[in-house]
Amino acid sequence: MLNALIVGASGYTGAELAAYLQRHPHVYLSSLMVSSQSLDRGKCFSELHPQYKGILDLPLQPLTDVSEAAKEIDVVFLATAHEVSHDIAPVFLDAGCIVFDLSGAYRIQNTQFYEKYYGFKHKNAEWLARAVYGLAEWQAEKIKQAQLIAVPGCYPTVSQLSLKPLLEQNLLDTEHWPVINAVSGVSGVGRKAATTNSFCEVSLQPYGVFNHRHQPEIATHLGTEVIFTPHLGNFSRGILATMTCKLKADVTEAQIREVYQQAYHDKPLVRLYRHGFPSLKAVVGLPFCDIGFAVQGQHLIVVGAEDNLLKGAAAQAVQCMNIRFGYEETQALL
Amino acid sequence: MLNALIVGASGYTGAELAAYLQRHPHVYLSSLMVSSQSLDRGKCFSELHPQYKGILDLPLQPLTDVSEAAKEIDVVFLATAHEVSHDIAPVFLDAGCIVFDLSGAYRIQNTQFYEKYYGFKHKNAEWLARAVYGLAEWQAEKIKQAQLIAVPGCYPTVSQLSLKPLLEQNLLDTEHWPVINAVSGVSGVGRKAATTNSFCEVSLQPYGVFNHRHQPEIATHLGTEVIFTPHLGNFSRGILATMTCKLKADVTEAQIREVYQQAYHDKPLVRLYRHGFPSLKAVVGLPFCDIGFAVQGQHLIVVGAEDNLLKGAAAQAVQCMNIRFGYEETQALL
Amino acid sequence: MLNALIVGASGYTGAELAAYLQRHPHVYLSSLMVSSQSLDRGKCFSELHPQYKGILDLPLQPLTDVSEAAKEIDVVFLATAHEVSHDIAPVFLDAGCIVFDLSGAYRIQNTQFYEKYYGFKHKNAEWLARAVYGLAEWQAEKIKQAQLIAVPGCYPTVSQLSLKPLLEQNLLDTEHWPVINAVSGVSGVGRKAATTNSFCEVSLQPYGVFNHRHQPEIATHLGTEVIFTPHLGNFSRGILATMTCKLKADVTEAQIREVYQQAYHDKPLVRLYRHGFPSLKAVVGLPFCDIGFAVQGQHLIVVGAEDNLLKGAAAQAVQCMNIRFGYEETQALL
Amino acid sequence: MLNALIVGASGYTGAELAAYLQRHPHVYLSSLMVSSQSLDRGKCFSELHPQYKGILDLPLQPLTDVSEAAKEIDVVFLATAHEVSHDIAPVFLDAGCIVFDLSGAYRIQNTQFYEKYYGFKHKNAEWLARAVYGLAEWQAEKIKQAQLIAVPGCYPTVSQLSLKPLLEQNLLDTEHWPVINAVSGVSGVGRKAATTNSFCEVSLQPYGVFNHRHQPEIATHLGTEVIFTPHLGNFSRGILATMTCKLKADVTEAQIREVYQQAYHDKPLVRLYRHGFPSLKAVVGLPFCDIGFAVQGQHLIVVGAEDNLLKGAAAQAVQCMNIRFGYEETQALL
Repeated sequence: MLNALIVGASGYTGAELAAYLQRHPHVYLSSLMVSSQSLDRGKCFSELHPQYKGILDLPLQPLTDVSEAAKEIDVVFLATAHEVSHDIAPVFLDAGCIVFDLSGAYRIQNTQFYEKYYGFKHKNAEWLARAVYGLAEWQAEKIKQAQLIAVPGCYPTVSQLSLKPLLEQNLLDTEHWPVINAVSGVSGVGRKAATTNSFCEVSLQPYGVFNHRHQPEIATHLGTEVIFTPHLGNFSRGILATMTCKLKADVTEAQIREVYQQAYHDKPLVRLYRHGFPSLKAVVGLPFCDIGFAVQGQHLIVVGAEDNLLKGAAAQAVQCMNIRFGYEETQALL
Repeated sequence: MLNALIVGASGYTGAELAAYLQRHPHVYLSSLMVSSQSLDRGKCFSELHPQYKGILDLPLQPLTDVSEAAKEIDVVFLATAHEVSHDIAPVFLDAGCIVFDLSGAYRIQNTQFYEKYYGFKHKNAEWLARAVYGLAEWQAEKIKQAQLIAVPGCYPTVSQLSLKPLLEQNLLDTEHWPVINAVSGVSGVGRKAATTNSFCEVSLQPYGVFNHRHQPEIATHLGTEVIFTPHLGNFSRGILATMTCKLKADVTEAQIREVYQQAYHDKPLVRLYRHGFPSLKAVVGLPFCDIGFAVQGQHLIVVGAEDNLLKGAAAQAVQCMNIRFGYEETQALL
Repeated sequence: MLNALIVGASGYTGAELAAYLQRHPHVYLSSLMVSSQSLDRGKCFSELHPQYKGILDLPLQPLTDVSEAAKEIDVVFLATAHEVSHDIAPVFLDAGCIVFDLSGAYRIQNTQFYEKYYGFKHKNAEWLARAVYGLAEWQAEKIKQAQLIAVPGCYPTVSQLSLKPLLEQNLLDTEHWPVINAVSGVSGVGRKAATTNSFCEVSLQPYGVFNHRHQPEIATHLGTEVIFTPHLGNFSRGILATMTCKLKADVTEAQIREVYQQAYHDKPLVRLYRHGFPSLKAVVGLPFCDIGFAVQGQHLIVVGAEDNLLKGAAAQAVQCMNIRFGYEETQALL
Repeated sequence: MLNALIVGASGYTGAELAAYLQRHPHVYLSSLMVSSQSLDRGKCFSELHPQYKGILDLPLQPLTDVSEAAKEIDVVFLATAHEVSHDIAPVFLDAGCIVFDLSGAYRIQNTQFYEKYYGFKHKNAEWLARAVYGLAEWQAEKIKQAQLIAVPGCYPTVSQLSLKPLLEQNLLDTEHWPVINAVSGVSGVGRKAATTNSFCEVSLQPYGVFNHRHQPEIATHLGTEVIFTPHLGNFSRGILATMTCKLKADVTEAQIREVYQQAYHDKPLVRLYRHGFPSLKAVVGLPFCDIGFAVQGQHLIVVGAEDNLLKGAAAQAVQCMNIRFGYEETQALL
């Protein structure tokens, strides 16, 4: 049994993590924590997330002393703000914990990236260099050895899972940058109150056009430039990404299907569509990333969908833990 | 032409007022104001309310000097917080303006009510005593003479319009208190950011059970006790109120229909249903209050619906202004 | 292991049943069937319900020969139209199956009821007489002996679970009929296409006022008259019921709390609220019925919430099966 | 005063047309018709569209004799199925009416197009040749002379208004086909019942990938190929289209802004954004097409939004009528 700790359990992702870990047969959920300034400290988890009433009624403890919190903990999940993760991950790591960081603090191995895109100076270059990017279907071998797993976020997961097989096999004409249009539910914004996520203000609209921090994350890890346009949609959960690509000459639909099959036939959390395309409904509440595509001439459209809080966050983190410790990959997830 | 001023034009009700007044043929919309501390001061109205881009691009001016603002103004609409209305209404009144107050500050002629239900001490007993309650269909004669019109809010309007004809004609057995169950859209909470109105948190749920301030407002103006249970619903606009009453013995459906006809046959903003019941869809975006009913034995169910921001706020305020100045009652509203 | 069969697996309730039974450790889900005329016969279950792609890809077999279908089946779940259930239940029963009927065909032990409220003549008086009403928390002893369990539907489950403890202990002044106002999600209407459940037409509205078939079902099983007003709401799943009752003189809040505790302290699928009230969010996707209440003078407001497809249908059916066969009551449900 | 007739007033677009025409100062709305087989014939318009109760209570008359219906009619609006429009337009035209066809039957001047994309053989080549495509901002001179105006639909209107200024001024590198990703509300599917538009089934999802009939309509009228991927979204009204284009070398943001200004500075129903991007909220219920854009290197993203039933259908039809008869372009629309 692993002793597990969640920091940031007041948020939507933290709540999903808590639910998964509680039902995981090899995990003992030791405690739920929030950052020491959180207004939710001391509250009961199920007061914030009433669906867990009677299922998970633990208190949200303030993380006042990180070293103390790290004692007797085997694994820690950080569902915290980027800078908080940046600061506390090393303490857990130095104490020997395996850290699954769901923030952006350790995803790009370039300290300057953080100043530009996250607004803080990265001071843990050493740990950053040792971090493994937790795109589970592609990094299993590295994850098995890692102490710090930087779990990719919602847009990068669905985008990379959809495009990586094509790029690895060199099927795309990358002179024409892939166009990624994605629509995310409001839970992607997090749980704090803001006019932008208030009920009457939310309305389908693009944001972060040409300057969203997930664009360089996707481009870096795919190894090719992309045009990424995120949108906020009027729903709570899920992401649908529609990707338009130019194929190299003579690439056929059959080749593409083969490449996807090759990549994912043994990956239980990626579902390929033989016909048609995913909808949000197919993935919300589930740990899958669904992928469908169509070809016309040299043009390819790939559509990927996932629950942003699950395969785009909590489920992938638990999947990484399962891989890391040799459990069944879908343990607690299905 | 009346010179009109709106205070509180950053909010949802203020925005609807602005749209109505701008198209009113007898009104010159002099300026849009917000309270002097508002974070929205100086912004363009249509930046906050993008649907009005190109239609109404006035700046939101901070109300720093109320006496100054009152100069050359004939009518002022206060879509402000209760205590702000309480404070500034007398300045406009003393300057000779006709004041339409959409807050709760002058609706109940009992200063103690405000301490209990609004949390402030009412200091303007004199103006309170002269305020006319602006339930337009029932107070036209008084409105015509009034200088201060306290426009009723969303729940009280639909509840009173639905029940008042029956009570006036003494058809209800008020030993059995009428039960008012109402569901309101989130815009009723106002435009400020709060966890309770954030997109992912809103979910059909009762609130203010047995202690909502609209219960005494309804009871006082109807002259009978009621059980009022408001709910927040997962939609932006509209209120549907379902009222269950006990009839006096021998009251017939035909009598009830006759009483409603009598009350509203010449009221253009109340629509009576011969068959069936109103839905939110029938009233959202429109200035009507729709009413349907059914009888079984001594039990009566009345269902009323309105757009909470229109007949429950801005449209009724403009209707009161139309009545006050002798314009057509629906001027600018239809 | 029980050999289980679902008839009506194309619908929303049938789909939930399938998901529960597939993960039930004591059940082998033998096959998924639809009525022989269904346009969905032959389709793959996960084509209709894409969330189950890769999880449950069985074909929907047409039920052409009921006797044949009953062979080697231990338990059958009928998520079929009322009249279909009426017709086929006896065939399964005569073959020795335990039948969980989710339709209304065997809920009221009065054949005349069906002509009036369901539009067909009940011809199976004998089996009707032997049917046990599957309100799980209240009928466990009878369910353990039953061969035919008539699982109550969505509105009756939440209404009865909320009111029955009070009536059993004689706390209500039933001269004042309890008023039940309930709002249901659109999935309650079923999966067939109709203008009334089309996306652009759905809007909060009452229906079946004074003549919904669940009124007599509730009244009969509670043993007292109620006023029941259902509404359709603009959401897919869940029911929230707000009940307003008159207490007998001198009944206290503490007594009421005690009565609820007494009734449900050992019932894992009913969650009592010490403070506040349930919201839809708290129950959607979960097998619970949540209950909160407040008292003022002699008036009591009780609010119950459930997922109409789960505790209001599929989860309660599985709960009944668990009780019937002595499994843990929440097996496969939590 | 023009005598006007609407055929297809039972649908969502027909209803919006009716509302506009009824308040148009130069139009007498002679009657509301539906096709002779419509199940809605004889019903009251406001029974189907309850928001118009008391505003527009005309009956929906069956169109049994087209020649008869054309008598004394000056203008007719066809909000009918494509094939119905194809059949009846010539009768109205031969009778001398000015016809505004909101179907697809006369939009492409190539009879073979209809067999491939609409499934019927076009038999009115002569009228097709004389039809003017009613993209109002670009065809005003031709519309003024036309007898048959083929009003473009929802996706083509927003796509062309967004891209045409750039193409006319030759700013795009069309080797890289513009990528149009659009999300439409469910009202775009029409008012008839179908599983695909039922409340519980609607979920963000692409459809018509690489084979939607609006792709060739857009490409033909723009004079360049495009990749068009429509999606159905979980909302009733509105379209948001996100277009990704490659600019020719050295094209600057300032040039693009200038080109848009040039094209639309005197067009009251196109609103250009100086900063930011349109949202659905900004256009729903309004007759505008809103356009915003951003540039990075040689990449351009343009976002257009409109109400699919208004600028994408009814408002544009009325705008065309205003242009045709020399009325103010926004008459009855604002």
